[in-house]
Amino acid sequence: MGDQARIDELNLTAIRMLSLDQVQKANSGHPGLPLGAAAIAYAIWDRFLKFNPRNPLWDNRDRFVLSAGHGCALQYSLLHLYGYDLPMEELRRFRQWGSRTPGHPEYGETPGVEATTGPLGQGLSNAVGMALAEAHLAEQFNRPGFSIVDHYTYGICSDGDLMEGITSEASSLAGHLGLGKLIFVYDDNRITIEGNTQMAFTENVAQRYAAYGWHVEEVADGNRVEELARAIESARSETRRPSLIIAKTHIGLNSPLQDTEKVHGEPMSAGHYAETRRRYGVSDRAPFSVPQESLDYFRHAAARGPRIEASWREMFAAYEKAHPELAARFRRMMRGDLPADCDSAWPVFSADRGGVATRDASGKTMNAVAVPLQGHLIGGSADLGPSVRTVLKNHGDIGHRSFGGANLHYGVREHAMGAISNGMALHGGIIPFTSTFLQFYDYMRPSVRLAALSRLRVIFIYSHDSIGLGEDGPTHQPIEHLAAMRAVPNLVVIRPADANETVWAWRVALSRRTGPTAICLTRQKLPVLDRTVLAPAAGLLKGAYVLTDLGGSSGAAPDVILMATGSEVSVTLQAAEVLAAEGRRARVVSMPSWELFESQPESYRSEVLPPDITARVAVEAGVSQGWHRYVGLRGGLVTIDRYGASAPAETLFEKYGFTPAHIAEEVNRVMLKGAK
Amino acid sequence: MGDQARIDELNLTAIRMLSLDQVQKANSGHPGLPLGAAAIAYAIWDRFLKFNPRNPLWDNRDRFVLSAGHGCALQYSLLHLYGYDLPMEELRRFRQWGSRTPGHPEYGETPGVEATTGPLGQGLSNAVGMALAEAHLAEQFNRPGFSIVDHYTYGICSDGDLMEGITSEASSLAGHLGLGKLIFVYDDNRITIEGNTQMAFTENVAQRYAAYGWHVEEVADGNRVEELARAIESARSETRRPSLIIAKTHIGLNSPLQDTEKVHGEPMSAGHYAETRRRYGVSDRAPFSVPQESLDYFRHAAARGPRIEASWREMFAAYEKAHPELAARFRRMMRGDLPADCDSAWPVFSADRGGVATRDASGKTMNAVAVPLQGHLIGGSADLGPSVRTVLKNHGDIGHRSFGGANLHYGVREHAMGAISNGMALHGGIIPFTSTFLQFYDYMRPSVRLAALSRLRVIFIYSHDSIGLGEDGPTHQPIEHLAAMRAVPNLVVIRPADANETVWAWRVALSRRTGPTAICLTRQKLPVLDRTVLAPAAGLLKGAYVLTDLGGSSGAAPDVILMATGSEVSVTLQAAEVLAAEGRRARVVSMPSWELFESQPESYRSEVLPPDITARVAVEAGVSQGWHRYVGLRGGLVTIDRYGASAPAETLFEKYGFTPAHIAEEVNRVMLKGAK
Repeated sequence: MGDQARIDELNLTAIRMLSLDQVQKANSGHPGLPLGAAAIAYAIWDRFLKFNPRNPLWDNRDRFVLSAGHGCALQYSLLHLYGYDLPMEELRRFRQWGSRTPGHPEYGETPGVEATTGPLGQGLSNAVGMALAEAHLAEQFNRPGFSIVDHYTYGICSDGDLMEGITSEASSLAGHLGLGKLIFVYDDNRITIEGNTQMAFTENVAQRYAAYGWHVEEVADGNRVEELARAIESARSETRRPSLIIAKTHIGLNSPLQDTEKVHGEPMSAGHYAETRRRYGVSDRAPFSVPQESLDYFRHAAARGPRIEASWREMFAAYEKAHPELAARFRRMMRGDLPADCDSAWPVFSADRGGVATRDASGKTMNAVAVPLQGHLIGGSADLGPSVRTVLKNHGDIGHRSFGGANLHYGVREHAMGAISNGMALHGGIIPFTSTFLQFYDYMRPSVRLAALSRLRVIFIYSHDSIGLGEDGPTHQPIEHLAAMRAVPNLVVIRPADANETVWAWRVALSRRTGPTAICLTRQKLPVLDRTVLAPAAGLLKGAYVLTDLGGSSGAAPDVILMATGSEVSVTLQAAEVLAAEGRRARVVSMPSWELFESQPESYRSEVLPPDITARVAVEAGVSQGWHRYVGLRGGLVTIDRYGASAPAETLFEKYGFTPAHIAEEVNRVMLKGAK
Repeated sequence: MGDQARIDELNLTAIRMLSLDQVQKANSGHPGLPLGAAAIAYAIWDRFLKFNPRNPLWDNRDRFVLSAGHGCALQYSLLHLYGYDLPMEELRRFRQWGSRTPGHPEYGETPGVEATTGPLGQGLSNAVGMALAEAHLAEQFNRPGFSIVDHYTYGICSDGDLMEGITSEASSLAGHLGLGKLIFVYDDNRITIEGNTQMAFTENVAQRYAAYGWHVEEVADGNRVEELARAIESARSETRRPSLIIAKTHIGLNSPLQDTEKVHGEPMSAGHYAETRRRYGVSDRAPFSVPQESLDYFRHAAARGPRIEASWREMFAAYEKAHPELAARFRRMMRGDLPADCDSAWPVFSADRGGVATRDASGKTMNAVAVPLQGHLIGGSADLGPSVRTVLKNHGDIGHRSFGGANLHYGVREHAMGAISNGMALHGGIIPFTSTFLQFYDYMRPSVRLAALSRLRVIFIYSHDSIGLGEDGPTHQPIEHLAAMRAVPNLVVIRPADANETVWAWRVALSRRTGPTAICLTRQKLPVLDRTVLAPAAGLLKGAYVLTDLGGSSGAAPDVILMATGSEVSVTLQAAEVLAAEGRRARVVSMPSWELFESQPESYRSEVLPPDITARVAVEAGVSQGWHRYVGLRGGLVTIDRYGASAPAETLFEKYGFTPAHIAEEVNRVMLKGAK
C-alpha cells in the first residue's frame, strides 16, 4: 500500500467514525450512508473540490451537494475536518436544539452546506440549477484570459433520489442543455428502507442516463478512492455532457449490519457500534477523536483553499482593470443588489375599463425591468411561457451548450423547474423566476416549500389563477391553491387586483431577499382601476389597503367591510356601488397579500379593518379556508368550496356567485344576522 | 387502396372533422392532437379495443386512457361514433356549462371516460394502476378454463406526459413489475406549447423506456392505421413487459398550421378551419355530420361489444357454478362492498397512559381488517412501509410478474403511488391505500387532488404528522400540510387523537365511497384515552365531539372551549385539568376531521361549539390557517406558524408551546381579553 493509500484509509476511517459517533451520541440519524459513501465524498473533496473553509461563500468555489441529505453526518465530518467553522462541539450536538448540525443539511444553518436537502431528488435538481448558473454567468462575464466564473458542481445521490420523478425531469433537462461541469456520483448500495432495491428499482440506470444524454461511468468498488478519482477525472474531461458515476458501495460498510436496511436510518445497538469500531481498529480511541496524522492531513489540504482564492482574486483584480463595468456588474449581481435604473423602469398603466389581464401586465412589467436587470433575471416556464406571458423579448434563449440567454425552456417539468430555480438562487448571481398555471403549483409544491424554508429569492409566477380561465375545466381551475400557498411559512403570496397592483407585486418580489414570492395572475382581462378616485396601487406594499369607502355619509364609519383579492376586486367594487345605492356605507379593501398585511403593525391593520366593524364579507374565487381570520365567526363569504367546471369564464363567475348582486345579497344577509 | 384502407380513411376524416367541429363551435379547445393522433386512437379502438357501449362499466372491458387529456374532443368523437350515450348534441355543447363534454376528460361525467386527465402524466400513471389491478385480480380469480379477468389497458400519451416526473416513476415501476398488458402509444409530434420539442426535450425516449424494462416499438408514420395495428399486435404478443409504441405524427395534420404549436391549444381562424375542411374534402358537408358509410361502419363495430360481453357472461355463469365462493367474492369486490365480517374485525384498545403511537394503532387496525378484506385492500408505501406501519403481514408481496399479493413496494415514488392507486380505484375491485410521511404528501398532491375530484375511494395514510417526529428536522416536519390538505374539496382528512380514534378513522375511510380519505398519524406514542371517563371514540364519525367538560360546577356551561386534534388532544386535556384547578370550566373537543364535522347538521355543531361561548382556543401542531373558523376573531391559538427544527420531540413540543401550562396561559389570555 502506497503512502497515499495508507493515509487515505486513515482519513476514511476518521470520517466514518466521526460520522458514526454523531449518530450514536444523538441516538438518532443515519449511519449507513456515511460508512458506505465516505470514499466518494472524500475522493471529491480531497482530490478535486475547490473550496476555502475560511470563506465558504467565495464566489468561484466548486459547489458540493449531498442530495441524499439523510447522510449529513458525513458532510458535517468533512466540514469539521477541513476546518470550516464547525467545531467538534457541534458534531457532538448533532440533531439537538440550536445546533449547527441539524438532522438534514440546512442551507444557512451550517457553513459549507450549499443546499437544504433530505426530501429526495431536490439536491440533484438544485445542482442542475447551480451548474446552469455557473454556465450562464461564465458566458456572460468570462473574457479571454479571465475565467472569472469557472467551477464544477459535484454531488452525491442515492437510489431514492433516482427514483423520484423530479430527478428524471432535472436530469433530462441537464442532458438536453449539456451541462458539462455537473458531476454526480450515485451511491449504488442496492438497499432502500424497505429492503433490497430488487423489490422496486430494477431499471438500468446507466442506460437511462445515457438516454438523457449524460456521460456515464461505472466504478466497481465505490470504496476505493483511486478508482473513484479516475472516474471523476474522466467526468471532468467530458465537457459537453453532465456525468453520472455509478459507484457500487456497501451501506454500513464493515458494520455487522452491512448491506442491510437496518443500518440505513437508525443508530446501531451498543454492541454493533462497539463491533464496528473494533473492525475499524479504533476501539481504543475515544469517540469524536481523530488521529493527529489525519488532522494534519486535513489541515494541510484545507490550506489550499485560501491560496486558490487568493490567486482568483488576483485575476479578478486584473479583470476589474480590463473590464471595469463587467466587474462592477458581476459584483453587484453576486451581492444580489438591483441596479439603480430599475426604479425608473416600472411601467404605469392608465385607468381602463376594457382592461388588461394581469398576466399581460406582468409580462410588460417583466420585460420593462429586464432591460436594466439584463443577465440577472433569468427564468422560464414549464412549457407555458406564451400563455403566462413570461417570455423576455430580446434577451435570448438558453439552449443546448448555449447558456447566455435569459429564457429557459423547462419543458413540462414543473417540479424540476422549482428546484433548478432554487439551485440558481443558491448559487448566487441570478434572480430566477418560474412560471406555469396556478393549478400546476401543486406539481412543484415541494420545491417551493424548500425555497421558503431556505429563504431563497425566487419568483414564482402563476397565471390562470381561478375559474376565470374558463373552458379548460376543473382539472385546470385552481380552487384550493391560494389557501395551500398561504399556508406555507415564509412564502409571500400576492394576487394583484389590476395591472398597477401587478407592477407593485413585481417590485415586492424583486426586492424581497429573505424568501420567495408567488404572484398569481389572471388569464382574463380586468379593469385597470382608476386611481384618481381609488387609493394608489402602492398600497399593495402593505398587503391590504382601503380602496374606497362608498355610500352613506362621507367620513362616517363604514357599515360593512368588503375585502377581495385579484379578479374579484372589481366586481366587489361594483357590489359596493349597489350597496351604496341602497344606503349602505361599504368599505372595499383590496387584499393582495395576507403575508404582507400580517407583517404590518397592529395599528395599521386596525385602521384597515377596524375591530368594531364586524359586518365583513370576503370575496375570492377560491376556497374560504383562512378567510375567517378576517371576517370572523359572523362574517360572510363569497368563495368556492367545491370544484370548478368547464364553461366560459363569464358563465362560471355568474354560476358561482361572483356578481355584484350576489355579493350585495351576502352583505345584506350578514348585516341582518348581525342585527339580530 | 384496399377496401379497408378506404373506409379507414373515411372514418378517420369523420373522427377528425367531428373533433375539429367541437373545438370550433366551442371557440375553445385543442384541435392539434385530434387531427394528428386520430389514427392512433382509431387503430386501438377499431382493431383491438374490447368494449360495450351499452354497458360502459362492464368489468372485463379493455381500459383506454387518453393521458394527453387536452385532446378529449377526439375521445368524445369516438364515444359518440361507437354509440355510447353521448349524442351529437353533447358534442355541440363541447366545453359548455352542464354538458357531458368538459374541456378535459372527467371520470363520472362522460360514459366511456375511464379517468380524469389533463394534468400531464396522471393518465399514464392511472393506466399503470389499472393494468396492475387487472393482473392482481386475474391472479386472484382466474382458474383453469376461466379467464374471468383478462383485458388490456391501452392509452395515448404525449411528449408532455413523458417529460413529467410522475411518468418516469410510474413507468419505471411498470417496467419493474412487468405489466405485459399495458400498451401505450406515444403521439410523437415533436411540438410543445412553446415550440419544437428540440427546445427542451431531446432525450432518447426509446432508450429510456428500454432502460425501464419496457418493450419499445417505433412507427414511422403514425397516421397509417395498418402500421399502428402491426405495432399494437406486436405489443399484445409481448406478455412480460409493458409496451411503448413511439408513433411519429403531425400535430394538426393537413391543416394550414400543421407541425406548429399554433394548432395545439386554440381554435383555428375561420379561414384555417375552412381550408382544413377543404383539404379533407368535406367542404360541402355540414359541421357535425358524418357520412352514412362511416356511421354504418361504427354501428357495426359497436355491435361487437354486446356479443363479447355476452360470451363473457356465459363463461362467468359457468365459473359461478364451478367456483361459487370466488364468483361471489369477485362480484362483491367489483361492487365495492365490504364483507360482513369486517364489522367484527375492528380492534379495541384499552386505556393506556404509556400509550400507543397512532401509526402503530393504524398498523394493527389494517392488519386486523385485512383478513376479511383479503385481496380487496391492496397498497403499499413509497419506501416507508416499516415506518408508517402499513405492511400487511401474511398477505404477500406484489413483485415482478407476481401480482397476487397485497403489499406493493412503490419505491421512493410518491407521485406515481398516488396516481397508480387512483388507477386501481378507477379499475374497480380494489380498495387501494398508499403510505408515506405526511411531509411527502406534497410530492403526491396533484394525484390526491384528482382522487378527490374524481370521487375515488383511495385511502392515503400519512405518519410522522408533526414536529413530533423529532430529530429529522424541518425538511421532514409537516407544518402547513394539514391546512393544505383540508383546503382540498372532497378530501376527508382525519387526524385521530389516540388508538381508538384511529380505528374509527379506518372505519370511515373504508366505508367512504364518494372520495378519498387521508389519515394522519403520529410517530410518537400517545396515551390511549380512558373512554370510561371520556366520550367514546365513535364520536369521530361526526368529525368533532365533546370529550369532556372539566371543572366548575357540573352541568354548567363551559367558560371556555378547547379544541385540538391528534397528538395535541392529550396535552389539551391536561391543560383543562390545570384550568379546572384554577376554577375554570373547560370543554375539551376532539376535532379529528373538519370535513366530517362540517357535514353535520347545524344543531349538532352548535351543541359541540355553542355560539355564545366565544372564549375558544385551538391547539394543533401545525399552521393556524383555517382555525379562525372555529375560534373566531377573538379566539386563541396554540399553533405553529413557522418551520420546525431538528431536536428530540419532547424538546420541540416544549419550545413550540405545546405544554399544559402554556395552553392554559393562552386560555387565560383569551378570557382576559374577552372580559375587557
